[in-house]
Amino acid sequence: MASNNGDVKLIGAWASPYVMRPRIALNVKSVEYEFLQEQFGSKSELLLKSNPVHKKIPVLLHNGKPICESSIIVEYIDEVWSSGPSILPSDPYDRAVARFWAAYLDEKNVRGAAAASSEEAKNAAVDQLKEGMALLEGAYVEISKGKDFFGGEKIGFIDIAFGSMLAWLRALQVMLGGVKLLDEEKTPGLCKWAAKFSADPAVKDVLPETEKIIEFAKLLVAKIKAAAASS
Amino acid sequence: MASNNGDVKLIGAWASPYVMRPRIALNVKSVEYEFLQEQFGSKSELLLKSNPVHKKIPVLLHNGKPICESSIIVEYIDEVWSSGPSILPSDPYDRAVARFWAAYLDEKNVRGAAAASSEEAKNAAVDQLKEGMALLEGAYVEISKGKDFFGGEKIGFIDIAFGSMLAWLRALQVMLGGVKLLDEEKTPGLCKWAAKFSADPAVKDVLPETEKIIEFAKLLVAKIKAAAASS
Repeated sequence: MASNNGDVKLIGAWASPYVMRPRIALNVKSVEYEFLQEQFGSKSELLLKSNPVHKKIPVLLHNGKPICESSIIVEYIDEVWSSGPSILPSDPYDRAVARFWAAYLDEKNVRGAAAASSEEAKNAAVDQLKEGMALLEGAYVEISKGKDFFGGEKIGFIDIAFGSMLAWLRALQVMLGGVKLLDEEKTPGLCKWAAKFSADPAVKDVLPETEKIIEFAKLLVAKIKAAAASS
Repeated sequence: MASNNGDVKLIGAWASPYVMRPRIALNVKSVEYEFLQEQFGSKSELLLKSNPVHKKIPVLLHNGKPICESSIIVEYIDEVWSSGPSILPSDPYDRAVARFWAAYLDEKNVRGAAAASSEEAKNAAVDQLKEGMALLEGAYVEISKGKDFFGGEKIGFIDIAFGSMLAWLRALQVMLGGVKLLDEEKTPGLCKWAAKFSADPAVKDVLPETEKIIEFAKLLVAKIKAAAASS
């Protein structure tokens, strides 16, 4: 573990892909941190005080100072603990490409597809997910250049942004009745990548088991449907 | 002007706040570029080829390589022409704060408020804009620490992200019947900032006159309403 961490706390929740991002980044950098988990369905005073604009997890508290938004936190971690393995590439063009795909992934809501309210909405969500996976397969082939990760030999910015969604993607495949999102025929690169990513020492204790996510997703879907019914 | 620019082209359109961001950033760095303007209502082959994922302006072409998404382009410009004035702060925490507010501003759609389809929608849009301005006034006081800009003595990342919206904010004030968004009483800091920003040599030829934006906004609103009516 790195010495001279300072005081590092992360406000989050185990099931959130956005929270998994800074957790993986801190692991990559061997930074010890205290994980402060929010209760499902409520927001702590500390969270509200630390992220008054969005009131959302994750928030990194570094020596008491709050940093918000998952991708911004990952860049912060990369810059502060710069002696550890680099998360962003060093070349400006490669950095722009990494930021582009992280921003692309930020706009996708893998969790929303689980809550589709009709067969039609479900099919539309699945089509969009498959389209996204095909696009990412192409990006993987181009960016990884035959190496294991988008980041090359090691996990990088796109790996973290995308890999944080893997547990939810796998849960979705089951919840949507056996839909293939990670598909050996259509996305062989991503299948290989997903296996390598999930087994990485910085990742394996962060990504929850698929069954645990399915259980949690059912709670979440019930909550979303109850909220929709009462509005 | 900086020498050894390389070949720099920007695909954009004069009225887009997102396109104004890289234009201001290139001016800050004294980088000469060719401005390739898209025609209103159509997309060029070059744009479709350069940004196949989003098919949106702006796209920076640097020695033929495309960089997409306005904030990512501004970071790229800052990193490539690093000998010019810095756009992002050097301290990782200050960088995270700058990225946070730029991302906050990315989510706001000042142009959408002009197209509100009812009095109720208009009032809701105005309330949201005023709330955002109050939040940004607080951020300005805290971040600028009595200096002219969010970036201190010079224009920085938040200044560019927010300042690119100024022409549209001023147009909206007129189009929404004299609503005060930049308000001497409620947002005195931002009023002072807006005047300084608009007069900066890197900015003044990029921000269009309010009247020109109003004229363009009327065209845009008519197009949005026609599209809504035919769907």
